[in-house]
Amino acid sequence: MNLIAQLRDVLGPAAVRTGPDIPARNRTDAAAEEVVEPLALVLPCSTAEVAAVLALCHAAGQPVVPQGGMTGLVDASRPAPGEIAISLERMCGVEEVDPVSGTITALAGTPLETVQKAAEAAGMMIGIDLGARGSCTVGGNVATNAGGNSVLRFGMTRANVRGLEAVLADGRVVRSNAKMIKNNTGFDWPQLLIGSEGTLGIVTRVTLTLHPCPAAISTALAMVPDTAAALALLRDVGARLPGGLLVFEAMWSEFYAIATGKMGLRAPLVATDGVCLLIQAPETDPEGSALVDALHANMEAGHVSDAAVAQSEAERKQFWALRESVYDHARFFPRTVGFDVSFPLDRMGTAVEQLRSRIAQAFPGAAWVVFGHLADGNLHVNIMAEPAGPATRAKAEKLVYGLVGELGGSVSAEHGIGRAKTAYLHLTRSPEELRLMAEIKHALDPKNILSPGRVLV
Amino acid sequence: MNLIAQLRDVLGPAAVRTGPDIPARNRTDAAAEEVVEPLALVLPCSTAEVAAVLALCHAAGQPVVPQGGMTGLVDASRPAPGEIAISLERMCGVEEVDPVSGTITALAGTPLETVQKAAEAAGMMIGIDLGARGSCTVGGNVATNAGGNSVLRFGMTRANVRGLEAVLADGRVVRSNAKMIKNNTGFDWPQLLIGSEGTLGIVTRVTLTLHPCPAAISTALAMVPDTAAALALLRDVGARLPGGLLVFEAMWSEFYAIATGKMGLRAPLVATDGVCLLIQAPETDPEGSALVDALHANMEAGHVSDAAVAQSEAERKQFWALRESVYDHARFFPRTVGFDVSFPLDRMGTAVEQLRSRIAQAFPGAAWVVFGHLADGNLHVNIMAEPAGPATRAKAEKLVYGLVGELGGSVSAEHGIGRAKTAYLHLTRSPEELRLMAEIKHALDPKNILSPGRVLV
Repeated sequence: MNLIAQLRDVLGPAAVRTGPDIPARNRTDAAAEEVVEPLALVLPCSTAEVAAVLALCHAAGQPVVPQGGMTGLVDASRPAPGEIAISLERMCGVEEVDPVSGTITALAGTPLETVQKAAEAAGMMIGIDLGARGSCTVGGNVATNAGGNSVLRFGMTRANVRGLEAVLADGRVVRSNAKMIKNNTGFDWPQLLIGSEGTLGIVTRVTLTLHPCPAAISTALAMVPDTAAALALLRDVGARLPGGLLVFEAMWSEFYAIATGKMGLRAPLVATDGVCLLIQAPETDPEGSALVDALHANMEAGHVSDAAVAQSEAERKQFWALRESVYDHARFFPRTVGFDVSFPLDRMGTAVEQLRSRIAQAFPGAAWVVFGHLADGNLHVNIMAEPAGPATRAKAEKLVYGLVGELGGSVSAEHGIGRAKTAYLHLTRSPEELRLMAEIKHALDPKNILSPGRVLV
Repeated sequence: MNLIAQLRDVLGPAAVRTGPDIPARNRTDAAAEEVVEPLALVLPCSTAEVAAVLALCHAAGQPVVPQGGMTGLVDASRPAPGEIAISLERMCGVEEVDPVSGTITALAGTPLETVQKAAEAAGMMIGIDLGARGSCTVGGNVATNAGGNSVLRFGMTRANVRGLEAVLADGRVVRSNAKMIKNNTGFDWPQLLIGSEGTLGIVTRVTLTLHPCPAAISTALAMVPDTAAALALLRDVGARLPGGLLVFEAMWSEFYAIATGKMGLRAPLVATDGVCLLIQAPETDPEGSALVDALHANMEAGHVSDAAVAQSEAERKQFWALRESVYDHARFFPRTVGFDVSFPLDRMGTAVEQLRSRIAQAFPGAAWVVFGHLADGNLHVNIMAEPAGPATRAKAEKLVYGLVGELGGSVSAEHGIGRAKTAYLHLTRSPEELRLMAEIKHALDPKNILSPGRVLV
């Protein structure tokens, strides 16, 4: 009996699809570099079924690729020809909300937004939020150590995971004791799987930490002259607010000019040059003014050129529309070559200045923007140069990743490596680190059946 | 040339000690179960020297045990006969404080308190604090994933590590890119080493996150009727304070009665029965009353029997003296069998009730206390039963760890496994988890020279 027949035998015929029965969504990720039909798509309904699938594939030496919401941007979950795609989409549902332990447990295929809503229904919140919340799955968030909008306050996904269940390459199921904050009992293998992008195991069940919801959240825009001033404001405001900051997004002048110019969004600030910051902070009570007070003190001291605090939900949305205008760039510009990189904060000013001068030289006249989660050291750089195509992409990658290498930054802040960045991984990781990763990979997946060619080549 | 001679050749004769030249401090840890003379004590001064030592020991198949401040309680850093002890004590010093990136970097042998003071000198703080701060080293904190007093706010040591340098079993040096918050570039190997208790590598350099100091810290004592009420107060107060809580320590009635009775400490509360909580919270400004307000609301609602907020540094010390009275129990009671365990918070009430009834039955008339970092699910249980000795210890361990197993808790919340708890590890970790750990250990230390017999047997 061949492998496909064996899989159908175990999962039932409807859960193992081939050829035209494989939906378009399982053939590529959000980067959509290529559309590929896998050897088969399997749709397990339980951890036991995932285990059975992997045990069979392991025995057969059959490469597989796990799939979540397919919202990744680094070509990790797109199948390669000959791979079997294992989609967790049927393993969906919040299993438990435990406000006493402060935990929420969901199956890996549950959309992030579903988990968020279940937490909110219990009067609490989780510490993970990203734009793709409606499509991405919590298992995918864990597999990729997703970043997003809440990292400044709650850390990467890694910091939000209390417990994990996963299936290893040969079908063994590992479960960590899921509810304790403190559990110093040997190696923390869940931390190894978090962010491994499907190359060390398949996440099947996730327990996340719940947090209390703040009484209110203030939202502001502030304009500062430059990157150094933005970082100084970050430290000052962070120190003034006991609850810290929730959001500290930066839009450098190129970004702000496009949003308020060509795209016609309302500019709530008089000052237009410099770095525009989108800031959110929790308030102790619904009428709280902690963020207003902190920004006011910085304006009085001359550190902030201009600022506005949202007085209504409509204004809050208007402020966010500036930041989210980037998702509409495709309507105005040629195809973007996008980057997700990070720099140590003490080199952030240099990084932006160098991007400015090198992009002007390499792509004269091209529109480009730099923006991102400044507090996390995370810059997104989009270069909208023509002609779109591999040559422009290669030139842009050389420019941006070269700078990352020079300044000791990271070639992937939050999106991961997948297949899109394997050629640049050495700029952030030393040969010794890469060898250690390869040894870990070999120990956990000796036949290299889990997402081969992703992360490590 | 034998190994000792080779080591002397590389490190110089003064850095390789044998026989009576080995100080008492390198012969046992703080549990002091046994005093053992290692084959040799080596005192490297640099990462390169640690690498050279491990390369030689690896080639010779020579077992080693890394040593920090020797403040561990689970018999991990005490040498076994025939092992070479590698003490990091000469690798001491804070190398960099970078307030812009929010990082501090120190050599592994630096005492925690030295790192704390360097952060404070820059107007900031680190998120790690424990009673042994003056003796324990930051490398030891990382190797053991130390818990302590700040976990509620800043997480375990794991959550505070931004970057790591370590030497692997065969002498290879691995360094992670040290300053970025976001760095999704392959497996997060530092997370694997954190908490591995010296069995996967030797930590040589640590970069920790810096946090702003709060404007002020309020300290309070509160008495609540029982464990459920304590957990309800934790959730309520945590939700009222945007900066959350810093400390939420519980002393159950047996503990409070001894402290305020036999030990004669002043009882600032009228109510004496129930659970006494020591609470600290950050304040927005030096005159802030966020914690007072939150406790007042809970008293009005009848959730808190009695409460007192420290009005001076002297009162703050007096409140802490209650909690720290446990360190003086040796003056009043027979030798303690101590435990460091955790339970899911939703089973914490059951855990305490079961301890109460089972200890009364197993050790009638014996003094015992339960206290700990309640918010973290971390209980310390001390049973002061006679006769002191292996039989009493075995009986107590069976009782406490048996309960941990029944309730899905952890046999080690923060102290680790070392050699003291290997026999109980299976109560918290499944056979599949233990096998995975063994595979990881074999991949990273195939000759089993790093702290053999610790964590895994």
